[in-house]
Amino acid sequence: MEITANNPKRKSWLQVNSNSDFPIQNIPFGVFITKDDIITIGTRIGDFAIDLGALHQLGYFEGIPLTDDIFLQDTLNDFIADGRKTWRLVRNRIAEIFDVTNGKLRDNAEHKDKIIFRMEDVEMQLPVSVGDYTDFYASKEHATNVGSLFRDPENALLPNWLHIPIGYHGRSSSIVPSGTPIHRPIGQQRPSEGETTPNFGPSKLLDFELEMAFITTVANDLGDRIPIEEADEYIFGLVLFNDWSARDIQAWEYVPLGPFLGKNFASTISPWIVTLDALEPFRVDNPKQVHEPLPYLKKEGKDSLDINLQMAIKPEGKEETVVCNSNFKYMYWTMAQQLAHHTVNGCPVNAGDMMGSGTISGPTKDSFGSMLELTWRGQNPIKMNDGSERKFINDNDTVIMRGYSQNDQVRIGFGECTGKILPAKE
Amino acid sequence: MEITANNPKRKSWLQVNSNSDFPIQNIPFGVFITKDDIITIGTRIGDFAIDLGALHQLGYFEGIPLTDDIFLQDTLNDFIADGRKTWRLVRNRIAEIFDVTNGKLRDNAEHKDKIIFRMEDVEMQLPVSVGDYTDFYASKEHATNVGSLFRDPENALLPNWLHIPIGYHGRSSSIVPSGTPIHRPIGQQRPSEGETTPNFGPSKLLDFELEMAFITTVANDLGDRIPIEEADEYIFGLVLFNDWSARDIQAWEYVPLGPFLGKNFASTISPWIVTLDALEPFRVDNPKQVHEPLPYLKKEGKDSLDINLQMAIKPEGKEETVVCNSNFKYMYWTMAQQLAHHTVNGCPVNAGDMMGSGTISGPTKDSFGSMLELTWRGQNPIKMNDGSERKFINDNDTVIMRGYSQNDQVRIGFGECTGKILPAKE
Repeated sequence: MEITANNPKRKSWLQVNSNSDFPIQNIPFGVFITKDDIITIGTRIGDFAIDLGALHQLGYFEGIPLTDDIFLQDTLNDFIADGRKTWRLVRNRIAEIFDVTNGKLRDNAEHKDKIIFRMEDVEMQLPVSVGDYTDFYASKEHATNVGSLFRDPENALLPNWLHIPIGYHGRSSSIVPSGTPIHRPIGQQRPSEGETTPNFGPSKLLDFELEMAFITTVANDLGDRIPIEEADEYIFGLVLFNDWSARDIQAWEYVPLGPFLGKNFASTISPWIVTLDALEPFRVDNPKQVHEPLPYLKKEGKDSLDINLQMAIKPEGKEETVVCNSNFKYMYWTMAQQLAHHTVNGCPVNAGDMMGSGTISGPTKDSFGSMLELTWRGQNPIKMNDGSERKFINDNDTVIMRGYSQNDQVRIGFGECTGKILPAKE
Repeated sequence: MEITANNPKRKSWLQVNSNSDFPIQNIPFGVFITKDDIITIGTRIGDFAIDLGALHQLGYFEGIPLTDDIFLQDTLNDFIADGRKTWRLVRNRIAEIFDVTNGKLRDNAEHKDKIIFRMEDVEMQLPVSVGDYTDFYASKEHATNVGSLFRDPENALLPNWLHIPIGYHGRSSSIVPSGTPIHRPIGQQRPSEGETTPNFGPSKLLDFELEMAFITTVANDLGDRIPIEEADEYIFGLVLFNDWSARDIQAWEYVPLGPFLGKNFASTISPWIVTLDALEPFRVDNPKQVHEPLPYLKKEGKDSLDINLQMAIKPEGKEETVVCNSNFKYMYWTMAQQLAHHTVNGCPVNAGDMMGSGTISGPTKDSFGSMLELTWRGQNPIKMNDGSERKFINDNDTVIMRGYSQNDQVRIGFGECTGKILPAKE
């Protein structure tokens, strides 16, 4: 099916600023609460939130096989489970409805009142109920940096890393939407020199991790696997993802079974899921891999995505400082490889599962995706625009992640993924 | 509220064999499908399955605040979310209804037809939709054995182990109910001596792990924690748990972020959740801990449970061989300590979350909870009753876990948790 929604020439009758992340070619999906306290599934064009529940009730999706209440829900899970054909039909239809040449809704003031809201009048929610959340560790630069910092700079990459898209399971219950404030976590930390009792208290080394995450649809039953050629079919879309990390809690707890309380106090995602379809124009060549991957991980083509990513820190009442510029294309293992690997043993993937990329660090020092790497474990503090310095995140700092793809025809963005760190709760 | 359901003197008008795991003092909760293809929440007395949906519709829970459809569901999650007071009211009422002196249902043939089924006529389902699944690593003997086998016998326990109830996140999507057959998983394994390319194929070292798991109710919001004194309130009940493990896949993938595909191909639980209330008579003293725990983990009392656990292997068409006898009381960290630890950083725990104990190994060689430990990595194969030997699990072996508590008055059991290993799927 042609993705007519992606037509770069199309203009909308809704006003869209030229630098907007949400032109009519984006059409992301999210969940919001209106001023009238109604929760609904929606999309966004420019600075307008569009109620897809109302649009459906008023007959604008006629001819597309959708259940009556598919958009009158508090998560996208059921819509995602409907599969790629349905997503495409719906995105194409939305593009038609808001096309500058289409007067059907444009000229119906009563309908517009029910369907279109200003973004400042809605409250974005978590877009999906995440069943299982897996975090990968797929940036070679990040794995090399962390290996150098924590183990051995000469053998920074462990022997398995170049063969396996290393991943581990995360906690779904603490995934929160952008804007949710987060208390500094409390926990055990390594005993001080000469002591045997662990330290205990608020984390002193609170960090962000610049990641992206993709949301899947129902892919396979227990015992079956997803062939790498089919992996794209099961990827609904992507979000920005800040995988908050308490480095001191993590360092003490993580052997031998991996990170736990150092990560699961909170993970923030951006509220709009940008579809993989909308990002089609930004596919770029797969990374060159050091070893030829095993057959189940082998696929030629353009499975990488050119998405500019940025992280900024904003001290309370001060202006922000951009601390990192990275790009999703720096990933060593592609999403297709991750899905093929995740299911090679028969592990089932469901609608609403989320797969994090792992921290995305680029080749240059200003592209490292965590404070751990940017300040090299605090050795090189970052100078902030307000004159202060940061080794890690301070209380009352807001961390702001942004992401967008751009070519000479269109810009497809994610908006912001923000979180403010509140002092530890006594 | 008194747990009158636990009265050891009570007898039921339903026939119960003296060695049954399910006397009227048990009253576990599960989900089953009847011959008429109706899915419902139920309990079990002797070899009878009792439809709680029908019991509720026919008015037997009058006076207990329950929504009309609370038992007409395909998972126990909503009932679990109702909280401990409701669980107790319902269990107490069920005990009354089936008390040998109570004629109300006993003498109503029409109602009995709608409510009571023979166990062989129902098909047990997964009792909960597991939101998040955490696996702990809480048996000192197991951690010591694994540390000796994989690292250094002189320093088998890592420095953090005696201070932290070590845990990690598992995969919810591959949790299956007892009886679900499981294909031998396929995956990468360590390269052969002198090679750099990993081996790939069916796991050669497929193992069970003898565990128990507890199911929680809604406990805390993001940022809040559960004080250890309150932890029991949030534990609905327990199941037997076989955490299948492919040792060769696990060994190659697990550094530095922990087990992933070596575990997430399948995890089997017993279908009846035995409530923590029903296990009250089997509380025993907490284990003596080497170091005084940090204050948030400190609690005196009887938080350990005396539950006999057994694992058997049954080759196809042959009699079974019991390979391990262990006990839940061998756990070094209690469930209360695990919950307090899990939430000390503000991580939210929800209704239907599952917390595995980790492999429960006892002090003697025949009480080790995995083939890895029982055969000491295959060095000492186990002789089977049919004359064959096992280092790990063979294709078409059925692994059977059993568990029960017993004193001179009552036996409270879990039934069986079984799984047959099918050959790898091509």
